[in-house]
Amino acid sequence: MSGLLWHKDGVEVDPRIMQFLAGDDVLLDRELFLHDVQASQAHVQGLERIGLLGADECAGLLRELDALAADFRSGAFVLDARYEDGHSAIEARLIERLGDAGRKVHTGRSRNDQVLVASRLWLKARLDELIAHCTAAARVCLDRAASEALPMPGYTHLQRAVVSSTAMWFAGFAEALIDDARRAQDTRGLIDANPLGTAAGYGVNLPLDRDFTTAALGFARLQVSPVYAQLSRGKFELAALDALASALLDLRRLAWDLSLFTTAEYGFVHLPAAYTTGSSIMPNKRNPDVVELMRASYAAVAAARCEVEQLLSLPSGYQRDLQFSKGSIVHGFGRGLGALALLPGLLRALEWNESSMLAAIEPSMYATDVAIEQAAAGVPFREAYRRAAETAASSGEGRTPQGSLDARVSPGGAADLRLDELERRWQALAVAT
Amino acid sequence: MSGLLWHKDGVEVDPRIMQFLAGDDVLLDRELFLHDVQASQAHVQGLERIGLLGADECAGLLRELDALAADFRSGAFVLDARYEDGHSAIEARLIERLGDAGRKVHTGRSRNDQVLVASRLWLKARLDELIAHCTAAARVCLDRAASEALPMPGYTHLQRAVVSSTAMWFAGFAEALIDDARRAQDTRGLIDANPLGTAAGYGVNLPLDRDFTTAALGFARLQVSPVYAQLSRGKFELAALDALASALLDLRRLAWDLSLFTTAEYGFVHLPAAYTTGSSIMPNKRNPDVVELMRASYAAVAAARCEVEQLLSLPSGYQRDLQFSKGSIVHGFGRGLGALALLPGLLRALEWNESSMLAAIEPSMYATDVAIEQAAAGVPFREAYRRAAETAASSGEGRTPQGSLDARVSPGGAADLRLDELERRWQALAVAT
Amino acid sequence: MSGLLWHKDGVEVDPRIMQFLAGDDVLLDRELFLHDVQASQAHVQGLERIGLLGADECAGLLRELDALAADFRSGAFVLDARYEDGHSAIEARLIERLGDAGRKVHTGRSRNDQVLVASRLWLKARLDELIAHCTAAARVCLDRAASEALPMPGYTHLQRAVVSSTAMWFAGFAEALIDDARRAQDTRGLIDANPLGTAAGYGVNLPLDRDFTTAALGFARLQVSPVYAQLSRGKFELAALDALASALLDLRRLAWDLSLFTTAEYGFVHLPAAYTTGSSIMPNKRNPDVVELMRASYAAVAAARCEVEQLLSLPSGYQRDLQFSKGSIVHGFGRGLGALALLPGLLRALEWNESSMLAAIEPSMYATDVAIEQAAAGVPFREAYRRAAETAASSGEGRTPQGSLDARVSPGGAADLRLDELERRWQALAVAT
Amino acid sequence: MSGLLWHKDGVEVDPRIMQFLAGDDVLLDRELFLHDVQASQAHVQGLERIGLLGADECAGLLRELDALAADFRSGAFVLDARYEDGHSAIEARLIERLGDAGRKVHTGRSRNDQVLVASRLWLKARLDELIAHCTAAARVCLDRAASEALPMPGYTHLQRAVVSSTAMWFAGFAEALIDDARRAQDTRGLIDANPLGTAAGYGVNLPLDRDFTTAALGFARLQVSPVYAQLSRGKFELAALDALASALLDLRRLAWDLSLFTTAEYGFVHLPAAYTTGSSIMPNKRNPDVVELMRASYAAVAAARCEVEQLLSLPSGYQRDLQFSKGSIVHGFGRGLGALALLPGLLRALEWNESSMLAAIEPSMYATDVAIEQAAAGVPFREAYRRAAETAASSGEGRTPQGSLDARVSPGGAADLRLDELERRWQALAVAT
Repeated sequence: MSGLLWHKDGVEVDPRIMQFLAGDDVLLDRELFLHDVQASQAHVQGLERIGLLGADECAGLLRELDALAADFRSGAFVLDARYEDGHSAIEARLIERLGDAGRKVHTGRSRNDQVLVASRLWLKARLDELIAHCTAAARVCLDRAASEALPMPGYTHLQRAVVSSTAMWFAGFAEALIDDARRAQDTRGLIDANPLGTAAGYGVNLPLDRDFTTAALGFARLQVSPVYAQLSRGKFELAALDALASALLDLRRLAWDLSLFTTAEYGFVHLPAAYTTGSSIMPNKRNPDVVELMRASYAAVAAARCEVEQLLSLPSGYQRDLQFSKGSIVHGFGRGLGALALLPGLLRALEWNESSMLAAIEPSMYATDVAIEQAAAGVPFREAYRRAAETAASSGEGRTPQGSLDARVSPGGAADLRLDELERRWQALAVAT
Repeated sequence: MSGLLWHKDGVEVDPRIMQFLAGDDVLLDRELFLHDVQASQAHVQGLERIGLLGADECAGLLRELDALAADFRSGAFVLDARYEDGHSAIEARLIERLGDAGRKVHTGRSRNDQVLVASRLWLKARLDELIAHCTAAARVCLDRAASEALPMPGYTHLQRAVVSSTAMWFAGFAEALIDDARRAQDTRGLIDANPLGTAAGYGVNLPLDRDFTTAALGFARLQVSPVYAQLSRGKFELAALDALASALLDLRRLAWDLSLFTTAEYGFVHLPAAYTTGSSIMPNKRNPDVVELMRASYAAVAAARCEVEQLLSLPSGYQRDLQFSKGSIVHGFGRGLGALALLPGLLRALEWNESSMLAAIEPSMYATDVAIEQAAAGVPFREAYRRAAETAASSGEGRTPQGSLDARVSPGGAADLRLDELERRWQALAVAT
Repeated sequence: MSGLLWHKDGVEVDPRIMQFLAGDDVLLDRELFLHDVQASQAHVQGLERIGLLGADECAGLLRELDALAADFRSGAFVLDARYEDGHSAIEARLIERLGDAGRKVHTGRSRNDQVLVASRLWLKARLDELIAHCTAAARVCLDRAASEALPMPGYTHLQRAVVSSTAMWFAGFAEALIDDARRAQDTRGLIDANPLGTAAGYGVNLPLDRDFTTAALGFARLQVSPVYAQLSRGKFELAALDALASALLDLRRLAWDLSLFTTAEYGFVHLPAAYTTGSSIMPNKRNPDVVELMRASYAAVAAARCEVEQLLSLPSGYQRDLQFSKGSIVHGFGRGLGALALLPGLLRALEWNESSMLAAIEPSMYATDVAIEQAAAGVPFREAYRRAAETAASSGEGRTPQGSLDARVSPGGAADLRLDELERRWQALAVAT
Repeated sequence: MSGLLWHKDGVEVDPRIMQFLAGDDVLLDRELFLHDVQASQAHVQGLERIGLLGADECAGLLRELDALAADFRSGAFVLDARYEDGHSAIEARLIERLGDAGRKVHTGRSRNDQVLVASRLWLKARLDELIAHCTAAARVCLDRAASEALPMPGYTHLQRAVVSSTAMWFAGFAEALIDDARRAQDTRGLIDANPLGTAAGYGVNLPLDRDFTTAALGFARLQVSPVYAQLSRGKFELAALDALASALLDLRRLAWDLSLFTTAEYGFVHLPAAYTTGSSIMPNKRNPDVVELMRASYAAVAAARCEVEQLLSLPSGYQRDLQFSKGSIVHGFGRGLGALALLPGLLRALEWNESSMLAAIEPSMYATDVAIEQAAAGVPFREAYRRAAETAASSGEGRTPQGSLDARVSPGGAADLRLDELERRWQALAVAT
């Protein structure tokens, strides 16, 4: 490994220990690398503004940082185990190319605020993706809720309960996903604070122009306190994972529905073959693996949360434990966003099997309608309930699924879905993003 | 147990099974009871508005619900294992007092939306407490950051790093707690949606005036979709616990600091005796139990989150599994808010030991100052760093802790704490609440 | 609160703080109380053996401890918030009845080893229950696997795959539960070590007869090191919860099966009415709540684990954080054992619906049989698989579910269930217990 | 991707979906690959024993599997994204080399039992490493407990409590690690059951010689039921992670001790420079990163547990969700064993600072000795405690740390460590392994 920034002569280095310390850190830094370069550019400009770098030095550093980013994107520069981490790699490259100007780049910053700012930019980008996926999936749900309203059984306890409709199902997930996007926006707002310039958690004896870097990097505000900058390591990662988990939680329930609806027993939904796989031993199988892995993806996000929160039982101030939070967010967001990215397409592609759904609507599922009609006619509900229970099996006489849906006039019910209200919320999201 | 709403003649009831089903549900319902009564009043008024109840019936129900709330508060009515749950108890009481009017109260609602609306009102009240505790604790931090600035060692890796100050420590936790309060407000906004009128998850065949109940109960908006109302069970509980956990996470780190600062080895902080206890065997001990239990309280919130998220691997629609989320939030918020409630007092009461802190500031802790001064004077930082490393032990020559703090001019640093900015954020919170 | 063992004059006590410190500790101690009394008796006898108590004092203390246990059982003595905890209550009672002999009972012990030994006895008793429930449920599974072998569909990915049988289903859960019981036994063995006599984690200057108390309390061995005694707090609780979780994990999957099998869509299983409940609004419903709460009970155990493991990020030595582990195990074992206790009865009571299961066996489910038959006849399997895939829909010609089961001769398959091997393992368990 | 075993003509394949399905599965299979090859050899021999393969075919397959293993080890064969997974890669290679004999290798097995058997062999190997690390670390602890007994402060609540010794500290962790090794052995015993031959969870219509493969692969017994084989997916992974977590839990507390002991405030322990790193900004720092990452490694194991347990809320039978358990165990064991592997060396290398420890022993720390001496002399302990509390500050008169340790005669105490008993347990472990 080249160029340990802190290496002192005469200290033996044990390769097994070095490997344990390094872990897969440098590989994870590939995720952060371009954000680190971007933040380094803001830092350099800030140093120039307070006279710590000359105009030529600044220009040279900006140019070489651009070149490094380009090389990284093209593959001409590979961030690998030659470096302790991405931060060291950047400094080493700048020194190699620019000499003393490179040796000045770390003035007034620490790897502590360097990783903070890079990971915060990364998190903001991931939350943007999260918002985009939720918004796109909600769009499909709203559209299909508006255009199809096939009767289907409504369940409680997985038991057939009352008549429902595909429009109600889509509207329900639309509202869920709109809330998830809103929450992701709130979270993005919370973490949209610039930690660059807090150094190792105690500031420095330089009048860094933190307001400049805040604006240059597009942060909404300054993260004021250096002590808090360190306290927010892990905390902000958790907040972002919480927002991701909220969407994945809904995806898990949606995937459970589809997992049941695509069984032979339900037969309500057909998935295109692209969403299924076969078996190595059973020639007859087509399995809804995509849906199952969507369902399972919550687990990766929960695991990432778990790892971060376990790390955070610490006094204030940076401690190396926090380093492990990097792998958690990369793993958790990788899996979680990967699953969500496929959701809009899946929602567009799923086909309802109308006849199976109709066949699953039993006469007793009108019993609640009957009881409430009697209540509306003046029979005390508790009495109407008892009567309807006795005659539940024959509740369906003269009734149809569509008739039941047409009478479901409570706001949000099949006859008053209030999609306009959901549409308004969706638009508000889109504007805010 | 009296009055199972759904009981049918001829069905045997196994007491062991009934007990397993009941669990401690009715005891937990004590927490929700007054909210349930309040929501029942809104429901009753809504029924009257659509002609399902006469004016007299409505007035009688409102009166009896008031009386029931008063009896509950006074202890004249005890919610206990005689009832299946709080919902049944309310209906039973109204029937007992009012006969048919009582039998009408459940018209158009299910226990599903009844528990949803009551627990949402409960969560909003808990989030208000959370906001209040965070705001109060942040207030103490801001005040003490403004009024005291004793030098203390700043640590990374628990190793002495650079000079810090009590003002920086307080400012850090002030910003943390302001963010926690903001997050709790965001969360409150997210769950501030009225589920009453969604019945068992599919709406009803009645034109319920849900806009009225939304306004009457003080909700910011309607939770539109009945399907989503069910999907939000557990999801909103998790969101509230996430917000709570964020504050407890900071409390855990603060408590860790105090746990160390009150050791004989550090000796930085003295706690009043009221915050300590003794030992049953060791006559010489005074132990900082309060601080330790504050630190440990995160675990209860994490456990509550864990329980809820484990429950939520389910298809859509109500399933009995979700019932267990009630105990989770009661336990988690009970422990979490209990710990936070003591925080403002503790922060006010803690006394710094100035001499111990000064004694812990070593000469080598000025090495970073030295390196950056040289960098400011034109020596490339990486070179300045190497020189300063060689002379670290003598870095303190001619330097004082106060001098180091006075030179810490980067924004957020000891010489430019920017408490005005934090104060502005604190005021914005207070206005929003 | 009476008799704080460590109270010093002149120290103010803040009631809000005292309540936070106390929590529900004294209520939880009701669970441990009789074990604490039992361990106190062993401790007293041990003191007498080394001359620290006279024979009369010892006899008096044993008698009063017996009386206290009897009063506790009868309700004549109630452990409540008058006491700081159960330990203090015991000492207070002995002093009240016996004066100086009572004041001697805490000689050579601390509340630290006192709670350790009581909670370890409690855990051993709970693990015994766990073993008993698993063994009883496995017994039902083995018996029903031996006596009924109705064909049913076998699923992978919830898709119909090959013919299976109720005997295979029962045999599978029998083996699972036998393993769970075995694991509980291993865990019981691991924690079966006596911590009494380790005091506050550093031993005492008395030649305590720890070998005597080890034998008197029925422990398999001494927990030697006082330092380890403290390290094992929480660790052993986690180990016990791990064993419980293993059984609950299987119960969760079994409950999932029953939750699906009792839907209208599957219709494979009928549950007696005692295992179901009704709806407050829908007159037509019977819901399998017991099965759902069994499924959900894993969450409580996971939450208990989570709480304990979050507490344990601590240096060695007792810290008050550990106190919270008590509530975790009481809650986790309460819920977990409560669910398991109903399992044997449920397994005995469930009735298969043979015709629904037969109707769900499709012709294509014989395709694997066909492919393997061809492979047995010399066609390379990968080729046989392709051929069978093409003709999957007609695989059933001339075939019956029973025929498929009769040919399933691989060990463990329907035609060679090897129940004798499982029976042998079950017997080995029974002997070991 | 080449050779999807289940691919059917005419089905479109969406590359984004394929990538989501594949994930990093094939990379993870590198971990399992050699175990898969080994199990394939046993399977092939089993097929030959029941006449499904000729002797020549069998010999050819064994030879090619040997060659494949050698190529994999040498890097001549690379398992990468060309293959759907490791299982497909093996079959593809055998077909390429041997034609029809290769096409026969999957006869009577499924990828389900193939991955089960490979991952079980992998888990057994990892548990062997776990046992070895715990045993080696316990060895160091026992040796140092026997050879050094420097006085050090004993803490409760992180407050100085009584005199302790380095021998007590080492003995405590020795016993902890011995228990951890024992638990790992128990777990290894539990999962030491052969799933090969259970196919997709329902067995096959072939008289597979499962007893042969059980012996050939070194399993202690058959996993009898195919249904249970599927139920044990994830369950056994969790059991193994539980055992790993137990050791990491102790490591976390040990690392916490060292993290404190190496602070300037404590100064009890010196770590060789190889175990420390420096800072990028602060020239004066040497940080105990190894100790911090050891402490943090528990989080990765907890996360792995969390991920697996979240996946397992499923009905019986294989579902694709379970695939994600592979990454969990690779990640969790990688991090956990990596940390434990360094423990014996660290324990050997740490040096105590005797004078710092002596300086931290205060006079009041003899108060418990005093109280118990008085109790031994006949003063009721509660009275002796009160007296000692009053004179705590002067308890040290005429006393020395060594004197306190010499009097600590309770079994396990400093004067009666009972290392012989621990040694016996350690030997029993070594024999069992």
